[in-house]
Amino acid sequence: MGMFSVSGKQQVCQLFFVQVILIVLMGALMTYGPEADANSLKNHGQTGDHGRKHVKKPDTDPLRVYPNVHVMIWIGFGFLMTFLRRYGQSAIGLTFLLGAILIQVAMICEGVTNFQIDSASPLSLKSLLNADVAVATPLISMGALLGKTTYMQLVFMGILELIMFTVNKYVGEHLLMVVDAGDSMFVHAFGAYFGLAVSFVFGMKDKPKEHNLEGASYNSDIFAMIGTVFLWLFWPSFNSAALQGDDQQRAIINTLLSISSSCVIAFATSALVSKDSKFNMVHVQNSTLAGGVAIGTAAGMMCKPVGALAVGALAGLLSVLGYKYLTPLIQKRLRIHDTCGVHNLHGMPGVLGGIFGALMAGLATEASYDYSLYEIFPARAPNSEAKLAEMRDNYGISAGFNRTAGEQAGYQLLVLVITVGIAIVSGLVTGLMMRMSICGLISEEQKFDDEANWELEEEATQESKIKEGNSYGGDQLPMAHI
Amino acid sequence: MGMFSVSGKQQVCQLFFVQVILIVLMGALMTYGPEADANSLKNHGQTGDHGRKHVKKPDTDPLRVYPNVHVMIWIGFGFLMTFLRRYGQSAIGLTFLLGAILIQVAMICEGVTNFQIDSASPLSLKSLLNADVAVATPLISMGALLGKTTYMQLVFMGILELIMFTVNKYVGEHLLMVVDAGDSMFVHAFGAYFGLAVSFVFGMKDKPKEHNLEGASYNSDIFAMIGTVFLWLFWPSFNSAALQGDDQQRAIINTLLSISSSCVIAFATSALVSKDSKFNMVHVQNSTLAGGVAIGTAAGMMCKPVGALAVGALAGLLSVLGYKYLTPLIQKRLRIHDTCGVHNLHGMPGVLGGIFGALMAGLATEASYDYSLYEIFPARAPNSEAKLAEMRDNYGISAGFNRTAGEQAGYQLLVLVITVGIAIVSGLVTGLMMRMSICGLISEEQKFDDEANWELEEEATQESKIKEGNSYGGDQLPMAHI
Amino acid sequence: MGMFSVSGKQQVCQLFFVQVILIVLMGALMTYGPEADANSLKNHGQTGDHGRKHVKKPDTDPLRVYPNVHVMIWIGFGFLMTFLRRYGQSAIGLTFLLGAILIQVAMICEGVTNFQIDSASPLSLKSLLNADVAVATPLISMGALLGKTTYMQLVFMGILELIMFTVNKYVGEHLLMVVDAGDSMFVHAFGAYFGLAVSFVFGMKDKPKEHNLEGASYNSDIFAMIGTVFLWLFWPSFNSAALQGDDQQRAIINTLLSISSSCVIAFATSALVSKDSKFNMVHVQNSTLAGGVAIGTAAGMMCKPVGALAVGALAGLLSVLGYKYLTPLIQKRLRIHDTCGVHNLHGMPGVLGGIFGALMAGLATEASYDYSLYEIFPARAPNSEAKLAEMRDNYGISAGFNRTAGEQAGYQLLVLVITVGIAIVSGLVTGLMMRMSICGLISEEQKFDDEANWELEEEATQESKIKEGNSYGGDQLPMAHI
Repeated sequence: MGMFSVSGKQQVCQLFFVQVILIVLMGALMTYGPEADANSLKNHGQTGDHGRKHVKKPDTDPLRVYPNVHVMIWIGFGFLMTFLRRYGQSAIGLTFLLGAILIQVAMICEGVTNFQIDSASPLSLKSLLNADVAVATPLISMGALLGKTTYMQLVFMGILELIMFTVNKYVGEHLLMVVDAGDSMFVHAFGAYFGLAVSFVFGMKDKPKEHNLEGASYNSDIFAMIGTVFLWLFWPSFNSAALQGDDQQRAIINTLLSISSSCVIAFATSALVSKDSKFNMVHVQNSTLAGGVAIGTAAGMMCKPVGALAVGALAGLLSVLGYKYLTPLIQKRLRIHDTCGVHNLHGMPGVLGGIFGALMAGLATEASYDYSLYEIFPARAPNSEAKLAEMRDNYGISAGFNRTAGEQAGYQLLVLVITVGIAIVSGLVTGLMMRMSICGLISEEQKFDDEANWELEEEATQESKIKEGNSYGGDQLPMAHI
Repeated sequence: MGMFSVSGKQQVCQLFFVQVILIVLMGALMTYGPEADANSLKNHGQTGDHGRKHVKKPDTDPLRVYPNVHVMIWIGFGFLMTFLRRYGQSAIGLTFLLGAILIQVAMICEGVTNFQIDSASPLSLKSLLNADVAVATPLISMGALLGKTTYMQLVFMGILELIMFTVNKYVGEHLLMVVDAGDSMFVHAFGAYFGLAVSFVFGMKDKPKEHNLEGASYNSDIFAMIGTVFLWLFWPSFNSAALQGDDQQRAIINTLLSISSSCVIAFATSALVSKDSKFNMVHVQNSTLAGGVAIGTAAGMMCKPVGALAVGALAGLLSVLGYKYLTPLIQKRLRIHDTCGVHNLHGMPGVLGGIFGALMAGLATEASYDYSLYEIFPARAPNSEAKLAEMRDNYGISAGFNRTAGEQAGYQLLVLVITVGIAIVSGLVTGLMMRMSICGLISEEQKFDDEANWELEEEATQESKIKEGNSYGGDQLPMAHI
Repeated sequence: MGMFSVSGKQQVCQLFFVQVILIVLMGALMTYGPEADANSLKNHGQTGDHGRKHVKKPDTDPLRVYPNVHVMIWIGFGFLMTFLRRYGQSAIGLTFLLGAILIQVAMICEGVTNFQIDSASPLSLKSLLNADVAVATPLISMGALLGKTTYMQLVFMGILELIMFTVNKYVGEHLLMVVDAGDSMFVHAFGAYFGLAVSFVFGMKDKPKEHNLEGASYNSDIFAMIGTVFLWLFWPSFNSAALQGDDQQRAIINTLLSISSSCVIAFATSALVSKDSKFNMVHVQNSTLAGGVAIGTAAGMMCKPVGALAVGALAGLLSVLGYKYLTPLIQKRLRIHDTCGVHNLHGMPGVLGGIFGALMAGLATEASYDYSLYEIFPARAPNSEAKLAEMRDNYGISAGFNRTAGEQAGYQLLVLVITVGIAIVSGLVTGLMMRMSICGLISEEQKFDDEANWELEEEATQESKIKEGNSYGGDQLPMAHI
């Protein structure tokens, strides 16, 4: 405990240090984007309406869906992880801390991507939205490690992970020109396999053992449902956040259908594999959401309502079976312990989403999409001037690489493989670095226990004790909780 | 228990079967609406802005209020019903399952209404919003039955109820051309009386008896407040969801005033009728919302701020008195057990809302509404070409039936009577079908108990027990919760 | 108890009376604003789109941020205060009651400000938004008094406070033409110092003593985090609610940066000052939000991303140090008891926000803001016709007072001083009036105890007790909770 205490002080210093570095970097690199800059004449109009003219069309206004995504990240992820009996305060508290650091890191990572020598990188509502989406990735990885790390280990992991996330997304989206509207690959699969790789490294040293605090309580299960339901209901916003117009509407419809279907099938499968045909809270808290992950890549595609329902159902089935049969196996054989079962919610459904997206890309034709085919899959647009002219003039289509449907599908699958590969390799390296003592380590008995992170009050759990009022000594200040 | 176990397996099969049928029907009947269809040239413009042109005006953009309504249905209804001491997981879990099934059913029901031989029915954001509103109806009925049914009984009820809901709303809204912006009649009164009719059928066989789990705990009451407060604060969105422009703004203002007033009066009445002038959590969780129901039909009408406050105050008063005096009476005399007291939150306030709406319709004149009278009450628009010409050309008014204010008020009352009538009759029939064993039955001792639905962990309720760490046996996998 | 019971009945009558007065005042003073009025021809267009023409631009549509602010007031404030072990129902319930009354009072206060002899005051979405913001002020003061008053004392305080709030904001905003976009001064500093002044008056009579119920429990701390996280994530909406266009975007970005930075630094400082370098829940629940308060005044100004981060970090640091060192001192020396520590979340960060705003105003130049300088600081606009002409014609700038940057900064500081002064003086007077018995008083043993306000059920805390099912007597109705 004494050693931990020393290490505790060091961690505090590291935490201050991280925020100072972030302030310095933000000062050096970032500025307001033109839409948020007072000194930008195009923001100001010809009289009337307080002189504003450059009004965003409602269709492209990030404020339509941004607040919903924001709720998912902070309330959804935070409360989803409160299911552990004695780790609820850490779950919600550390998500909060980690999120607040990583949203700044994500902005800087995006800023570096857009960096130009002569000017600072712009911040806009779009950047904030992108940062929220990026932050989801390390929070997913955190789910695999919940209760087994110090907070500074998570911070350290999150920063490295966001850098690799940015690299991988840049490769997939800009270099290989692949579509992943709801980030099934870039966020979900990446976050899950990265976290599992880290957990594998942790398990190499200490074989995962049974821990008596690793279970839920009646109330902690209900707290977790706050997270589940908010994630579930705003998932259509998450998957449609990067889209506009009819693509966005389609993504909302597809996601709602897929996640509804996965919810029903997850309940049914849970009862099927459980004793006495009862439901299991872990399945309900997690697998009900698998349809949102699985429709992600294809959310904006013309996969038809029935396609969205089908992939959602499959994801729900797969996810519950994963919890029941695969997770124990992975833990026993590979020594990978997965506290929240992110492999079942984000890993497998993410891969399924990537494959389904490739399939839909392979089936996409100009007959079913008209010219918006070339908006959704820019790499499929013609590269010859002759064919492009009319489209460009009338619909603003840019030149592409003239990819066929099959080629696009191939690229989609390639990026899925690359994503999982980068996630695993960088996760292994990150895990090795985390196991060194610089960020502290927690002992076996501190696992899954809020006492490791929080000054807890002795609780008067029994009603009688409360009524009696055992006074702590007259002169002490009453605000014992401060 | 053995028998229940068999029945449990059958229920699981039914649950899978329902989702499969939904996928088949959705595949056969539904497609993307034009606004969500990539192959719809009007979605694509002349260059610029990624080629988008068909931009929605902010005033008619469903994304302004849809997310709020979505929160009401899934978080609001779900958590409102968590007040029972040992039925919180079922309350939130079964609302979740039921909602996920019924939102698909509601889309299909709407699709059938719009069905044309030669083309599939369109899905749009508007359909999703309508489906959310429709789903509220069976969730209200569920409130009367909470803790007394199997989940498949609820699913079965919900599907039948949504069909009748669709028929009734079609008759009221399209055939009899009645206004019910906030669905006081179509959703609230219908859902309440349908549920009470089902409960009546259940009570015919088994007289409702006192049950020791039918009460709240300290924390379950706070969980329920999550539901109450989210319902309360987004109710203006619910009542204004179907409206636009000034009608929508007026509905928001009226609803906020009415529900604020009902909140204050519900608190005051609760203290008035309770021992020692204290507040009662059941009243606060429910009756505070009665003003939202009561202003529903008239939400978009010119009922003046003071009118909205007055009807809200009356609803709050009525609702608390109902909980205190009417519910026990109904249970004793009519053997209708009403777990959440939906008669007091949705039944009586819904009827009050219908009557208040008729009154406001009866007072509506061209002097106070100008030509928007004919937008709000389309049946009142002139049917003669001469009178209509100018309005049509300048304000887009269509020909109506030339109804007088009195006639419109009469139609409003007629639809209220029809709604309650259809609800009761179809509820009785549904209840009789539910009592047959196809969907299972729960025993007296399983009532209001999460054990009937969930694999619960034995809880280590005492702090000491947690600290000691009673290990369950060395070789077992630690993830006991999976 | 008998005496309290009498007083209880009187309080109920007062509560009814307040709502009746509000209905009368609303009837006498308020009407629908033109945007919500059916009888306003400009709401109706030339055909098409159901005759609507006067469509709001998305940029100025209050529905973009209003729902988020609404969540902050009702969920955020309500749940933030549930941290006390046995006062959770009162925290969420009384916030609910108080809010429902005061939102009506706030509308009437604004209505009186806009009052004209010949016509009623208009209600619009903007009024509802302003009312929400105003209601935050007495809810902040309530935080200082939580657990130590009757509900009618809070209602009485809230009404007086809103009147003084309206006067102070009118003086600052309209007479002295000061900028306070996120209301660091008008809401946060005012609410905190008003509440502390009331608490001072309460402490003059009874020295604050240690109370055994004044602490959190494991679950109450998690409930409070619902409030914290919703406040944290929607704070950018609060600070940007009154702004438009690039100002609004900038306010969102600045607030997100500042509140993220304060979150990280609050965690770090909490661990720094606590035993064993652990986090403290009180700090995490409150001080993480201090950055939102501190950036308030300057939210729409060009303070640069790095400026926002820096002021947030400073606020987080100040706030935790306040909890640790200043609050105990203030309680001991000044006998001011501050239940939620509003001085640390709203008081000091509010003053910091006012000073930072003055500093930014002092640094604002036409070079960095272009002509929007005169939109953001209207008093700095030229008053001479010659200089004004081009700006007015091209950008809609109105004539101002030709203030220099330094003068504007001076006015900002003056208003900060006036605000704190009015808050303290009117808080002292209000406190003296509250101590008289008209609104009841609560005894020392009723403090921080839900029993003072609620009919609580005896809880069956032990699992076994639930299982046994101690039946209460056969004939009694089962719905013991009604």
